[in-house]
Amino acid sequence: MSVAELQIVDRLKRVREFTDRITRPLSAEDCMIQSMEDASPTRWHLAHTTWFFEEFVLKRDPSYREFNQQFAYLFNSYYNAVGKQFPRPQRGMISRPNLAGIREYRQYVDQELVDRLESPEFLRQHQATVELGLHHEQQHQELILTDIKHALAANPLWPVYAAAPFAPGEPLDDSFMEFCEGQYQIGHDSETFCYDNERPCHTVFLPAYAIARGLVTCRQFIEFIDDRGYERPELWLSLGWNAVQEYGWKAPLYWIQRAGQWMQFTLAGLTEINPDWPVCHVSYFEADAFARWANKRLPTESEWEVACQATGCQGVEGGQFADWLLGDGRAVHPTSACAGFGGAVWQWTSSSYQAYPGYRPPEGAIGEYNGKFMCNQYVLRGGSVATSSSHIRPTYRNFFPAEARWQFSGIRLANGY
Amino acid sequence: MSVAELQIVDRLKRVREFTDRITRPLSAEDCMIQSMEDASPTRWHLAHTTWFFEEFVLKRDPSYREFNQQFAYLFNSYYNAVGKQFPRPQRGMISRPNLAGIREYRQYVDQELVDRLESPEFLRQHQATVELGLHHEQQHQELILTDIKHALAANPLWPVYAAAPFAPGEPLDDSFMEFCEGQYQIGHDSETFCYDNERPCHTVFLPAYAIARGLVTCRQFIEFIDDRGYERPELWLSLGWNAVQEYGWKAPLYWIQRAGQWMQFTLAGLTEINPDWPVCHVSYFEADAFARWANKRLPTESEWEVACQATGCQGVEGGQFADWLLGDGRAVHPTSACAGFGGAVWQWTSSSYQAYPGYRPPEGAIGEYNGKFMCNQYVLRGGSVATSSSHIRPTYRNFFPAEARWQFSGIRLANGY
Amino acid sequence: MSVAELQIVDRLKRVREFTDRITRPLSAEDCMIQSMEDASPTRWHLAHTTWFFEEFVLKRDPSYREFNQQFAYLFNSYYNAVGKQFPRPQRGMISRPNLAGIREYRQYVDQELVDRLESPEFLRQHQATVELGLHHEQQHQELILTDIKHALAANPLWPVYAAAPFAPGEPLDDSFMEFCEGQYQIGHDSETFCYDNERPCHTVFLPAYAIARGLVTCRQFIEFIDDRGYERPELWLSLGWNAVQEYGWKAPLYWIQRAGQWMQFTLAGLTEINPDWPVCHVSYFEADAFARWANKRLPTESEWEVACQATGCQGVEGGQFADWLLGDGRAVHPTSACAGFGGAVWQWTSSSYQAYPGYRPPEGAIGEYNGKFMCNQYVLRGGSVATSSSHIRPTYRNFFPAEARWQFSGIRLANGY
Amino acid sequence: MSVAELQIVDRLKRVREFTDRITRPLSAEDCMIQSMEDASPTRWHLAHTTWFFEEFVLKRDPSYREFNQQFAYLFNSYYNAVGKQFPRPQRGMISRPNLAGIREYRQYVDQELVDRLESPEFLRQHQATVELGLHHEQQHQELILTDIKHALAANPLWPVYAAAPFAPGEPLDDSFMEFCEGQYQIGHDSETFCYDNERPCHTVFLPAYAIARGLVTCRQFIEFIDDRGYERPELWLSLGWNAVQEYGWKAPLYWIQRAGQWMQFTLAGLTEINPDWPVCHVSYFEADAFARWANKRLPTESEWEVACQATGCQGVEGGQFADWLLGDGRAVHPTSACAGFGGAVWQWTSSSYQAYPGYRPPEGAIGEYNGKFMCNQYVLRGGSVATSSSHIRPTYRNFFPAEARWQFSGIRLANGY
Repeated sequence: MSVAELQIVDRLKRVREFTDRITRPLSAEDCMIQSMEDASPTRWHLAHTTWFFEEFVLKRDPSYREFNQQFAYLFNSYYNAVGKQFPRPQRGMISRPNLAGIREYRQYVDQELVDRLESPEFLRQHQATVELGLHHEQQHQELILTDIKHALAANPLWPVYAAAPFAPGEPLDDSFMEFCEGQYQIGHDSETFCYDNERPCHTVFLPAYAIARGLVTCRQFIEFIDDRGYERPELWLSLGWNAVQEYGWKAPLYWIQRAGQWMQFTLAGLTEINPDWPVCHVSYFEADAFARWANKRLPTESEWEVACQATGCQGVEGGQFADWLLGDGRAVHPTSACAGFGGAVWQWTSSSYQAYPGYRPPEGAIGEYNGKFMCNQYVLRGGSVATSSSHIRPTYRNFFPAEARWQFSGIRLANGY
Repeated sequence: MSVAELQIVDRLKRVREFTDRITRPLSAEDCMIQSMEDASPTRWHLAHTTWFFEEFVLKRDPSYREFNQQFAYLFNSYYNAVGKQFPRPQRGMISRPNLAGIREYRQYVDQELVDRLESPEFLRQHQATVELGLHHEQQHQELILTDIKHALAANPLWPVYAAAPFAPGEPLDDSFMEFCEGQYQIGHDSETFCYDNERPCHTVFLPAYAIARGLVTCRQFIEFIDDRGYERPELWLSLGWNAVQEYGWKAPLYWIQRAGQWMQFTLAGLTEINPDWPVCHVSYFEADAFARWANKRLPTESEWEVACQATGCQGVEGGQFADWLLGDGRAVHPTSACAGFGGAVWQWTSSSYQAYPGYRPPEGAIGEYNGKFMCNQYVLRGGSVATSSSHIRPTYRNFFPAEARWQFSGIRLANGY
Repeated sequence: MSVAELQIVDRLKRVREFTDRITRPLSAEDCMIQSMEDASPTRWHLAHTTWFFEEFVLKRDPSYREFNQQFAYLFNSYYNAVGKQFPRPQRGMISRPNLAGIREYRQYVDQELVDRLESPEFLRQHQATVELGLHHEQQHQELILTDIKHALAANPLWPVYAAAPFAPGEPLDDSFMEFCEGQYQIGHDSETFCYDNERPCHTVFLPAYAIARGLVTCRQFIEFIDDRGYERPELWLSLGWNAVQEYGWKAPLYWIQRAGQWMQFTLAGLTEINPDWPVCHVSYFEADAFARWANKRLPTESEWEVACQATGCQGVEGGQFADWLLGDGRAVHPTSACAGFGGAVWQWTSSSYQAYPGYRPPEGAIGEYNGKFMCNQYVLRGGSVATSSSHIRPTYRNFFPAEARWQFSGIRLANGY
Repeated sequence: MSVAELQIVDRLKRVREFTDRITRPLSAEDCMIQSMEDASPTRWHLAHTTWFFEEFVLKRDPSYREFNQQFAYLFNSYYNAVGKQFPRPQRGMISRPNLAGIREYRQYVDQELVDRLESPEFLRQHQATVELGLHHEQQHQELILTDIKHALAANPLWPVYAAAPFAPGEPLDDSFMEFCEGQYQIGHDSETFCYDNERPCHTVFLPAYAIARGLVTCRQFIEFIDDRGYERPELWLSLGWNAVQEYGWKAPLYWIQRAGQWMQFTLAGLTEINPDWPVCHVSYFEADAFARWANKRLPTESEWEVACQATGCQGVEGGQFADWLLGDGRAVHPTSACAGFGGAVWQWTSSSYQAYPGYRPPEGAIGEYNGKFMCNQYVLRGGSVATSSSHIRPTYRNFFPAEARWQFSGIRLANGY
């Protein structure tokens, strides 16, 4: 068995085990909740990531016997090319298979995969897809954490995902890095793994700009609130102002006020807000309004990437990531506003999520992974406390609609031109 | 200890145990599902029925220590007089306490109740409310069965609540009973338990009428479908026709067509429709349209009650009820169209649910039990396979909105004037 | 030409002219507005009432040449038996034919009708339908007034339908009439015109009761408001309380508060509320809540009819009606709380709108006039300031959903049993 | 009086008169219709454009007497800085002032403006805002045409805005222009008028690309339809596919099929589709799906602008514009697929509508003109048959949400990298 073979099987096991690790604090009941259409029950994530390997790897092998033929319908998310999908808003209404049955499904698929990956021929043919499946699973690990946070927050008892101390933070560095006008290279150009949307590497022209070294803190955001930031339409995009009115936003998601004190629901329970922590769970609209209030702006994704690369940083130095925090027995919550360009919170950029020049999605169903979502979404960069450190890189493009708040999304400011 | 005391404690235990009995086939996951706003998760029913005893009996005793103070908010259904309620559409998003915790809550409250009921003073003061709580629990037993059926039906795997053989049916008696014009007494007038909405007993004047001895069968309903019953607006109430269009109704709820054969989802799984069984899971609109198609009409609730009393029947003879079917190891599904006036299926009457002349709701929060729902609902009579035989009586008034289909609701025809 | 012939042609002209009379103050623009799905533009009423005669009378005559073939689609309201209907919520989007074109259509149909009614054979065959068409037009005259009031009220300039002084009112007689328990006859039994829903005349049994001689006044309703009537759930039906929350009701429709003074939008403009006037523009829910607050109840429609008949009143004595008010140059607004059983405001009864025993709708499309709406509506009795005095009678049954407020609907209380 | 003064007054008169010109075929009733929330009644456009001059010019002069103080509320569109706005979805419910009253308002404001513009001091101070007001009015002229088309299309009688012959078209040039990779200048940099969103002029880096000289024709689009373009999810963005399902799109807006022949509703009535005409009334989603089907793509707005400038074209040569067509007595409908870069139809670009680097909205309420809409919209370039030729320029950025179809929006393809 070659080193490459060992590697992928080993990583398969580690990534799959980490999924088990983050779902361990959750009961069968917790794993059932779908608290909104955009979120999914934990059990669905467990099954869907498994289905991904089954559909795109195992079912390519005629010798494979499907675990349950109806799972292809139940656990396909949005791949039209491989069949119809069970309606997304009803994922919370499926109780069978039960959680034990889903774990059995995971083990079955893992075993079938591991067995086949011993074959060099099979490995050669499917390694890229297995690799994709691992990154796919890591994305869902993040969603498991953000979705369960949203689910638990619906409960007035403020249930705790896992009681753990918060990590210590770094003092804020409030200086800005400066960049000259000129041509820069953006996007992924090495042989290492990346998603299709990070390619091709291409040239952009940037005007001179400055970008903050640190993240916006809760202290700064409370100043914005206290300055009536949520009540002044002139600070907001029109759709953002509509959202403020319609949803009654008065603070970031999960913030509540008790006796004049701002409190925050975290995966470790309800806690006082520490003003030094980076603000998170804000929408693009709030990030944009905050930046306007601060006489700054959000960076474009090109500016962000150039700055990140300029630090020589691989996107993880100084960051706070899910695997590190859990490994240290810490709460999954951002506590350092100076966490490097990667980690702690995703950072909204002002860039609409669009194809890079020359972008081509892969052939077949896998082509539906990214490209078809390039409309009415905004790019976030950097990774968060719910991201694995092995999942992120400086060219990584995350994307969510402008009103999304349930991700660990925060703010890095830019300036100049 | 007097017989009366023994009785209530004994009945408390039996009723509460029957709730355990019907939830035994369900997993923690099953008990989480809320498949529509009108239905509730099993676990919520388990907690709410317990809260009813806690709120209206135990909390009247200053020595009682509440199990969890926030349960009053989580598990109050609609009693404004005792406090705010957790929003109904979100009942399916509460995973904590988990199922074991809710069973513990049940045991705690049962024990506290049983202990106190030993005191004659306490018994005297609270017997009526405990009695009401038992009937309340029996109502929720029925809802547990109808709600879980609706929940499981959302799953394309057609999961089975409990595999069991169907009960044998009786041949249909398609004759009609006839009654003369005149004054009749309606409503409850004995000392035995009844809900407030069954009182007072009062006089009504009825024209001559006839009422069917048997229920409408699936065979008859298939004739209606085959005669394009769902496509002819002239058969329908205007709101009914809207419902047909909006929801795409083409058959009763839970009916699907496979290769030209009508199939039906039951608590014992997907099965072929037996034409001799009574039709069920029809709305008031479908019952009314069927009756018009058959050149008949639905009975008024007065006509129904007079006929039921005339048979000398206490509302249960010949019927199919939850306790009997489960006791016999049978599937909870109606299989006898000639089941007497009570049991098998609830029967839609043409009567809007209104107060009887002289009706007065009880003082206090318990007054919210029935009266405030007397608007835009229709009365059903008779009980169903999901009802306990000890819960029903000839004066019993059930009520649902005209479009409701998830109860075991069927059709008894009337005629004449 | 017989007297009967003269009569119908003469009445046709008078009724049709009265429609012109009430639309005269309205501009082409006013006649376009559809302010909600339940209301229609004035121009639509003008065309629809004309279409009724065309469809059900003229088109029965092969010699008749249709004015415009597409009007059958545009101006059919809900008669499925004669064809499809243009979607109701979009009636406000039709500008062609313009208002002049619609008036031309009215004249064309009038002339064709009048010409044909000279033929005794035609008259004999169609007299009943023409009669129905006239009553139908009178109903729409009322809707023209209530719909345009709702339409104009959407305009923050508070535009005036017609400036005119309010009629003087009568002092309130706050006594109650009493009736003994017993059998009474209800419904229409003479040869004179009535709608199908008023038949057959039949026997009902009523317990002893009392019914108010006068209507509830604004003074009384302000007391209810001041006693926090809109804030106390225990006073409301459950659906009513939902409506209070959802729509933010704090007073009857068209009431606003300015500097502590209650004002009311009327067809004669915005005016201070006169406490002696009868309250109007309340829903069934508000009428019911007010009655509960007052320790009274709403009468059933049988009680109302028995009382009205007992006064020897034909339903109009002492009333305020559209033709009388307009004839006197008065504003169309109720100003007398002691207006007899008929007139001033429609009075909500506690009776759900159901078929009388033995009710049969007529054959054919005309059968859709009333019967299919017998679901989730409540009966109102008496007529209002927007009703013609020649349109009303003691057996007349009007009906609206429980939340409807834009009719001139008020409250008469009952008591006892 | 200087030439500059004469110019602005003269242009004011001409632009305002052109608004009268295009509304002349419309009745008072036509001018009332609001067929969807995104569209406004003609009468509202007439008043709002007038209010713009009143609010931002005349009211700055203390000597000015407002025409009607409530118009500021009724006819403000979305300028929060100058006050609250009447709810947009209810614009179709305002009948007073009537159309004549609105025309009077226009004349009053015109006169007040013209009088004051004689003062060099006033002119100096307000010339820029008057200029903006004229361009603003031209934008609304286009909306009057597109909104009334949508309004009339709701009428099953297919009413005609103005019967007129279609303009002759040019043969399609299906070749592509090619551009080399490199830096280009984008945006407005001269002293002539432009909107704030066209500034500042800035450098972009473009890869090599090709862009079509002609527009996509109806013939090509029918091929797409016939190739099941609306049934194949792989051709669509995910949100686009949702829109196809939700709205049942099967062809461009205003296309219907009669006896196998594609017909199209135009401002000159229902007509057969001429396959040589450019396709229009397609959404961004349809433009994007068509391009994918054709193995091409949509151009970015930078590519479009570079190509337009490269032709030496000022954005109007060879185009079809509202003033030209109406001046020639032609129908307002695109009939030439080779109409230059400007005119005929707006062309969807793949560019999300974002701020140019260094963009700053003006101070005050006027700053709400463009900037706050930079979210979830896509840029269209070129102008259409509903645009005035004097309104357009190569740097002009129009923008609409991806699902908008009621503008004259079509497709220009790009290729390469």
